[in-house]
Amino acid sequence: MNLDLTVTTGELASAASALVRLVPGKLIDPVLSGLLLTADGAGVSLAANDRERAARLERPAVVHTEGRVLVPAKPFADTLRALDHEQVRLVVEGSKLAIRAPGARYALPLLDVDVHPGVAAPPAAAGTVDGQMFASALTTVAAAASRDDALPMFTGVRIRSEGDRLVMLATDRYQMAVAALAWRPTDAPVDALVPASLLTEIAKQVEGPVALHADRDRFGLVWQRAGGTTVATTAVLDGSFLHESKVSVSDVDTSVEVDADVLAGSVRRVGLYTDARGVMLLEVGDGELRLRGADQRSGEAEETLKADVSGGRTSHAYQGRFLTDALRAFSGARVRVEIQPGMRATVFSAVGESDLDLRYVVMPMLPPKH
Amino acid sequence: MNLDLTVTTGELASAASALVRLVPGKLIDPVLSGLLLTADGAGVSLAANDRERAARLERPAVVHTEGRVLVPAKPFADTLRALDHEQVRLVVEGSKLAIRAPGARYALPLLDVDVHPGVAAPPAAAGTVDGQMFASALTTVAAAASRDDALPMFTGVRIRSEGDRLVMLATDRYQMAVAALAWRPTDAPVDALVPASLLTEIAKQVEGPVALHADRDRFGLVWQRAGGTTVATTAVLDGSFLHESKVSVSDVDTSVEVDADVLAGSVRRVGLYTDARGVMLLEVGDGELRLRGADQRSGEAEETLKADVSGGRTSHAYQGRFLTDALRAFSGARVRVEIQPGMRATVFSAVGESDLDLRYVVMPMLPPKH
Repeated sequence: MNLDLTVTTGELASAASALVRLVPGKLIDPVLSGLLLTADGAGVSLAANDRERAARLERPAVVHTEGRVLVPAKPFADTLRALDHEQVRLVVEGSKLAIRAPGARYALPLLDVDVHPGVAAPPAAAGTVDGQMFASALTTVAAAASRDDALPMFTGVRIRSEGDRLVMLATDRYQMAVAALAWRPTDAPVDALVPASLLTEIAKQVEGPVALHADRDRFGLVWQRAGGTTVATTAVLDGSFLHESKVSVSDVDTSVEVDADVLAGSVRRVGLYTDARGVMLLEVGDGELRLRGADQRSGEAEETLKADVSGGRTSHAYQGRFLTDALRAFSGARVRVEIQPGMRATVFSAVGESDLDLRYVVMPMLPPKH
Repeated sequence: MNLDLTVTTGELASAASALVRLVPGKLIDPVLSGLLLTADGAGVSLAANDRERAARLERPAVVHTEGRVLVPAKPFADTLRALDHEQVRLVVEGSKLAIRAPGARYALPLLDVDVHPGVAAPPAAAGTVDGQMFASALTTVAAAASRDDALPMFTGVRIRSEGDRLVMLATDRYQMAVAALAWRPTDAPVDALVPASLLTEIAKQVEGPVALHADRDRFGLVWQRAGGTTVATTAVLDGSFLHESKVSVSDVDTSVEVDADVLAGSVRRVGLYTDARGVMLLEVGDGELRLRGADQRSGEAEETLKADVSGGRTSHAYQGRFLTDALRAFSGARVRVEIQPGMRATVFSAVGESDLDLRYVVMPMLPPKH
């Protein structure tokens, strides 16, 4: 095995950190938590594959000797991040990959590159979407997914195409977020249940136009960053059981428009005065909303805020943290809250037109007993 | 019970937060985690006493009705911190203390003020010290104390006066920090073992001159802040078993001077390549220091840095985290490292004169086996 190259430390460090976050690796298997380093005429590429997720990032480099090695990913990324030197040299020395800078040498053991599954090309291209808007939608929708790995079906975001619209949906069964935005389809439709934790990370990394790739078993995203291509792919589940039409919104009788940040501030303060469930009352009044909470130990709280109310006066109790999540998605703008009688869903949506069509659904709770 | 006052929200919020941090309270006893609010001609005072620690802070207020009430401290502090309104009114309404702002009312239950032990005056004054230098010394010394409550004697800082010098010392048995600074004694000498966690918090809060108060059982500090006096007192232990003279430094044969931040950077990077104990070798060479670490999984690291070396070439292994703690105290300056042969203490001190005389003692470890 051989490899020798010189590279800008900051560029390689950011690529290594991005890769480690896209593919967390399997701790029990050193090969599946390894980082595959390939130097060729085009520069250097960093890749990882834990058999569920895979990613590949390219960066410019001055390559002295082409080659391909596998090293432990985390110490590689941590060392580069901690280095102050502007340039760093990577060179195979015996059974080690040396990271060299003036006055410093770090040597990582070489793992068996032949055992590594490699990183396959992404599945067929399905279309392109604007990276910034896609990231904004993913941030909100992925946060509505469950973090409970015991229910893996609820830890994903269903991404499906409907003609020239791309719809993203996630739910943990108590709240649901649905976003739709314009995209440019190129071929077959997309419909995949993608792990929310991966999408949360991708939302932090994407730039410019993002290409979606999909087949029955895999989903992938490809974008350009820092002078190189980034490819991230993952195995997917069947997400067809998740659909926004399963939540009935036909009985809305009360509609309220209010500044999202003002209501979020009230929820935060009144939330200090709630029971162990964190439930507070949202009472709809004449041109105002009243938030009320009470707890035996802390006491009671009541806030009144101006709101545009139309229709009835249907009022419910909600868990404060779901209201907070829903309102965060509309921060900086006015939000429309549509309420249905009975224990049926309440829908949060933006007031006015927007390129991103976002709806956040929260289930009401039984009011606190007092 | 009665009380009615108007106050600037920010000022009262910062006082309530400061009080909660000085007196964390006993969760099992609502009275001992209560906040005693007193309104009189001089303004408002906030006080707490959990029978171990006590504190009292004064703030200006417009008092409509004088009075004294006891309320749960944490919801009181959290509510004030979350409020956006510039002014807030506190008023007793029935069995509740209402916190009122336009459109908002929070009501805390009144606790039985007659059961509260009150906050006694601090013990006799012993002298005065400059707050900024005292805080800087406390931050470093308190961090060297143990966080293990199973060994309460090592969780304290011994503060003792020696004429016109005030000496602070803490150790967790593996490292020791000693700081001495000038002070103005007024009366009896001070010698107390004060909880390090309280001193860490006080270091964040003190301003201007700080008065030390002490008797056999209690230690107190008094300073002015935000237009009012702050008093913090605590029960103390006997700390006479802690003394810097117990660490022998008579056999120093190797002395090294180096930039503290440069060495700290090397320790951080080489620390990525150490075994479970986190031990690295510090080799003293000709005009240079060599730091070496090795770990079966991560690999090996070696850094060389320029240093002024005098005397011998005695080299030891150390736990990286203790080197990091010691060097942090000298950040931004050159540090002298004095090394003794055998498993005896290594002493870190500032190069050149300083108003704060600070020494940091680290014990060497057995080198890693390879």
